[in-house]
Amino acid sequence: MTTTMTENSAVKLARLIREEIPLTDCMQVQGGSFERDCLSLHAPLHPNRNDKGCAFGGSMVSLMTLCGWGLVVIKLQDQEQLCDVYVQSSTVDYRRPAWSDFHAEAVLVEEESWGRFFTMLAARGKARATLAVDLRTEDGIVATMSARYVALRRLRS
Amino acid sequence: MTTTMTENSAVKLARLIREEIPLTDCMQVQGGSFERDCLSLHAPLHPNRNDKGCAFGGSMVSLMTLCGWGLVVIKLQDQEQLCDVYVQSSTVDYRRPAWSDFHAEAVLVEEESWGRFFTMLAARGKARATLAVDLRTEDGIVATMSARYVALRRLRS
Repeated sequence: MTTTMTENSAVKLARLIREEIPLTDCMQVQGGSFERDCLSLHAPLHPNRNDKGCAFGGSMVSLMTLCGWGLVVIKLQDQEQLCDVYVQSSTVDYRRPAWSDFHAEAVLVEEESWGRFFTMLAARGKARATLAVDLRTEDGIVATMSARYVALRRLRS
Repeated sequence: MTTTMTENSAVKLARLIREEIPLTDCMQVQGGSFERDCLSLHAPLHPNRNDKGCAFGGSMVSLMTLCGWGLVVIKLQDQEQLCDVYVQSSTVDYRRPAWSDFHAEAVLVEEESWGRFFTMLAARGKARATLAVDLRTEDGIVATMSARYVALRRLRS
């Protein structure tokens, strides 16, 4: 049951993303899973190919950026916190070309905790999270990203 | 006359990119100009919007990544060098949301020179370039990127 519920969080997120962010629909982003505070999102190679037939760098970094953003969004939804989430900065290391379908996996970096994130949000209406995102194909890791996101409490009108 | 020629380099590149990289066609990437070793590429907000109505972070970083890549490609074409160009790493600072159409401007960082780049390419069949890319709307800079690209000489069969 837990597996089904957590898979649904990722699938539901991907559906909402594709409805609201047209580029992610072009990318054919698909929900993977959300388990133990790790979110995964998938993308097929074909709509994301470049002139060489491997994955376009822009698609790779977009899926990673989106996956980190999605993890913060799901964590906030779990706590029923109404926030807007923005990416603030990111560093990407492209290790090798992706010649097949790829997926991103996002987790909070070890130095931070979700408990502290929500404490900050409660105190200041604003909190930051640094996420580590790996991009993988069936052959292993093709790129890694470290990115910082900020959540801002939405003012109710 | 020079202006017309240099504008054509950017417009021609954007047309080729959109033919070969489907995501850039979804983004409706348009050529800006190529003058004094600075390439600019444009993107309209509408196909690149996010759930909040401003530019999707993935679109912003994709246009910047593409603009840096395009500058290296144009410089190589000018010297009739047949190479594949890959992005190796990038660091992005998202300063504020982009609420209107946006464009990227890429230049080589001050510490490097194209002369040295082509000397390395001639000697080793491989050369690296670090580019500074600004992303702007009509209101000014919204994001900045520093990215490293590698050009590998294509082996003729």
